[in-house]
Amino acid sequence: MVEYRSDMADERSPFVRNAWYVACPSGDLTDDSLTARCITGIGLALYRDRESGAAVALRDRCPHRAFPLSKSTLRDGEIVCGYHGFRFGSDGRCTHIPSQANVPSTVRVRAFPVREDDGFVWVWTGDGDLAESAPLPTAWAPEPGADWGVARGAMEMSASYVHLHENLLDLSHLSYLHGENFAGPDYAETPCVFEETDEVIRSTRIVSPTTLPPIFANPLKMMGKDASRRVISTFVSPGLSLTETQMRRLDLGDDAPDHRIIVQHLVTPVTNIFVRYHFKIAVSFAHGALLETMAGQVRTIFGQDKDGLEALTAVRLHDADPAPLEVSVRADRAGVMLRRKLAQMAAGEQGRGRDETVAGEGARAVLDTMHT
Amino acid sequence: MVEYRSDMADERSPFVRNAWYVACPSGDLTDDSLTARCITGIGLALYRDRESGAAVALRDRCPHRAFPLSKSTLRDGEIVCGYHGFRFGSDGRCTHIPSQANVPSTVRVRAFPVREDDGFVWVWTGDGDLAESAPLPTAWAPEPGADWGVARGAMEMSASYVHLHENLLDLSHLSYLHGENFAGPDYAETPCVFEETDEVIRSTRIVSPTTLPPIFANPLKMMGKDASRRVISTFVSPGLSLTETQMRRLDLGDDAPDHRIIVQHLVTPVTNIFVRYHFKIAVSFAHGALLETMAGQVRTIFGQDKDGLEALTAVRLHDADPAPLEVSVRADRAGVMLRRKLAQMAAGEQGRGRDETVAGEGARAVLDTMHT
Amino acid sequence: MVEYRSDMADERSPFVRNAWYVACPSGDLTDDSLTARCITGIGLALYRDRESGAAVALRDRCPHRAFPLSKSTLRDGEIVCGYHGFRFGSDGRCTHIPSQANVPSTVRVRAFPVREDDGFVWVWTGDGDLAESAPLPTAWAPEPGADWGVARGAMEMSASYVHLHENLLDLSHLSYLHGENFAGPDYAETPCVFEETDEVIRSTRIVSPTTLPPIFANPLKMMGKDASRRVISTFVSPGLSLTETQMRRLDLGDDAPDHRIIVQHLVTPVTNIFVRYHFKIAVSFAHGALLETMAGQVRTIFGQDKDGLEALTAVRLHDADPAPLEVSVRADRAGVMLRRKLAQMAAGEQGRGRDETVAGEGARAVLDTMHT
Repeated sequence: MVEYRSDMADERSPFVRNAWYVACPSGDLTDDSLTARCITGIGLALYRDRESGAAVALRDRCPHRAFPLSKSTLRDGEIVCGYHGFRFGSDGRCTHIPSQANVPSTVRVRAFPVREDDGFVWVWTGDGDLAESAPLPTAWAPEPGADWGVARGAMEMSASYVHLHENLLDLSHLSYLHGENFAGPDYAETPCVFEETDEVIRSTRIVSPTTLPPIFANPLKMMGKDASRRVISTFVSPGLSLTETQMRRLDLGDDAPDHRIIVQHLVTPVTNIFVRYHFKIAVSFAHGALLETMAGQVRTIFGQDKDGLEALTAVRLHDADPAPLEVSVRADRAGVMLRRKLAQMAAGEQGRGRDETVAGEGARAVLDTMHT
Repeated sequence: MVEYRSDMADERSPFVRNAWYVACPSGDLTDDSLTARCITGIGLALYRDRESGAAVALRDRCPHRAFPLSKSTLRDGEIVCGYHGFRFGSDGRCTHIPSQANVPSTVRVRAFPVREDDGFVWVWTGDGDLAESAPLPTAWAPEPGADWGVARGAMEMSASYVHLHENLLDLSHLSYLHGENFAGPDYAETPCVFEETDEVIRSTRIVSPTTLPPIFANPLKMMGKDASRRVISTFVSPGLSLTETQMRRLDLGDDAPDHRIIVQHLVTPVTNIFVRYHFKIAVSFAHGALLETMAGQVRTIFGQDKDGLEALTAVRLHDADPAPLEVSVRADRAGVMLRRKLAQMAAGEQGRGRDETVAGEGARAVLDTMHT
Repeated sequence: MVEYRSDMADERSPFVRNAWYVACPSGDLTDDSLTARCITGIGLALYRDRESGAAVALRDRCPHRAFPLSKSTLRDGEIVCGYHGFRFGSDGRCTHIPSQANVPSTVRVRAFPVREDDGFVWVWTGDGDLAESAPLPTAWAPEPGADWGVARGAMEMSASYVHLHENLLDLSHLSYLHGENFAGPDYAETPCVFEETDEVIRSTRIVSPTTLPPIFANPLKMMGKDASRRVISTFVSPGLSLTETQMRRLDLGDDAPDHRIIVQHLVTPVTNIFVRYHFKIAVSFAHGALLETMAGQVRTIFGQDKDGLEALTAVRLHDADPAPLEVSVRADRAGVMLRRKLAQMAAGEQGRGRDETVAGEGARAVLDTMHT
């Protein structure tokens, strides 16, 4: 297997947990059933609070005997563990233990910070104290009044979220993994501009003049026309990446409108080699059936990314050759920045204590003081 | 995964091997075919001696080149290895090696102590010297002349035998894992009495007055009647646990007969996360079709235990959260006693030398002295 | 699991890589498609050079981001990586990186020495400097002008190539694994003669008088006749073993012709517990339909070897018994020689540096000097 280079994250790196990740679409949660999800290797039981309607995320493991709370029941707004009937409120505190009157305060299940925005439920699996001041990663929205078409989708892949993010920032694979029908050789040969700020890592590629691929040229009625194509990929956080494509006709001069497609990539590391991936596609120039056709083509393209990332992951996991270092070239600059940043973020978390004191020393105390 | 607490056994603990475990029902063995079983991670080839009819358990691995003896043949009452024709007697000694006249005494396959009782074959995979003086765990039998109905069954589950034993001693899960239809909230709230002696660990719960669940009330014609229900769970050995249920009508006073159900749970650790589980259900008040109906309901209940234990085992094996300690409460007292006892038994075995000298140093001697 | 004895190779030993192994039949390769194979745990992408037609074997992993080159495309005689379009020549040198003009010389994929002979493609996954002077293992061929029938076949098995080689050298299993119908008890009881030279390890068994099994007696019309049967097994290299069978009628005296069958066993370790196994059967006395019938019977016999080797491999991998040493007896002398030789060869390679400098320190240099 690949020798571990701690300065560039890959599938062997610790997770970045001090980050917001999408757990599921809002519509997946109700106040009368439990939903199981896994983020950064931690099992979660999700539901909605009966009073407030707020999404709740508890660790999917009863602190008593490890029964999955997601296979339990909700009663009177509380989880009743399916094995021994321990009850837990939405803050994770145990409110009732059958056959004893008192509930030691140490009997708790960990509750994770949750936010909800734009139809998605986000969860923070890291240090809870840091979540409060951490905003959700800025999702792009069309200007008020703008009439964009929006489509959503999701897929799962057996790969590291590190490699998915690298793929999303990487504009140089388009002509190859997706084929010349999607991006011609002129596209591949055009250099990128890279930018790293405190907030984001961004790569931009401008190809002009070029011709647009059918997926764009057909709905825009620009088949065969000289055009400019500008793609801007932005790593916003471990849970969000943005891709914006801007296209315009050249023969109309400065008056030609910019046609835009913005994709929000909502990336959730499930395990170190499994990713759940929600996406939201916003198109400035298509609605209805036309939008659906385009979204279907985008899903096909994302499926090619999935196939490619799963193929390289299999190589990395099964390869027995003892010389596995990667070479990086100029076009990888953004991806290398990104992987260094993820490695630094993860390393920073390892140094800190985590919010893991629940069910710790106190648990033995419960045992030692129990009476019959 | 869960941090290992050596004072309370779980799926990561060494096996207790100095104990009798059920290998199979007696009817599974014949003198002309070999049967493969695995106990405490050790593969066994079982058959019956042609002369005596006694059950024989040999290690399922030829000491020569590791071919499974269970895939070999029996000829003239001896195993003939299916790869090179080495022959072994029921004591494990090699009696013939093709193409050489002498058989070094060091060429042996390990033979395990075997006993047979009440339709089950028991095997001892630990120190053979200790087996002789160790009685089979005392199985319960109805008083002579008593007319009890008896049913048998078996199932397998992907869980540790430690957690199955804990489940069997644990009377507080009945109202939850098996549902209120089987044991109401009054049952869950009644405290247990715990008892640990040199021989056994026992928990007893008496609920009175109560109403019986349909599985018992229907055959006893006690639907809706005030009743007492007494459940006594007894850990006898790593291979046997007993559950006795006593039920009586309250409105008939002291003259009301005790209706009893006794279940022998014959627990066999196959691997650290796989259990084969035979059971024998004896009922004082049901025979024939009624007994079969009740036994079917009991199997459904045991299936719920299987589902629950497999669910918590999956959590324990896959959970990446770094704070996995268990909390224990008053109702867990018997289970905690049990898990400490299993941990102590296993630790005691680790300190002793085991009966593993077969195929050891002597094997090299054979090699070094061979001539052509 | 089995304790590792470093002086006798088994499935836990390092691979012998300084050896020629068959990658595939010659007919599997073309100049317009890529074929994936794995030898000694190293993934390979194979094809034919467009100009010379020579077989090419490159490591099946782009040095850039580990994409499998076997899932890429050939264009103008070069591999174009399916992820980012890096191009590689048949020597493994990168000839083009999209979006930059220069190609650092350090960007290379490892090319493996390849030879082709008698319809098979052989690859060397070890130290390339040693390959040049290493001849292909001497395959047997009939004397010029001799009219032998030849059949080929292949199978795969979940076992170590060590145990397959041991099986092929081992003449004492014939009566058991393949049954008395193939080799009677007289065969099993006849001692072997063993021979080890600098080049080969050989075992020979002569059974005379005997009767031949139907697979040979039927085509030779020697059913029930007294015959001599001589089997010579020869380990030639980690990639080749030979088995020769010589049979003659005894009642015709010295004039009786020798009827011969020679099998070339082309053994390829895919992983430590998976083998691909090509074989070539040459028969001095059968052609056409008769040869096909015999070859079918041979395949059945090899299938018994596969079943047996997979069974013992499963025992070795899953057995939890702490006393797993093997005993060896006189008839194992050749197998023990072989396993010691493989262990010595592997140990010798571990001491040497390997040809693994590609994509090493130079790779970092590329990264450090890239400009945008």
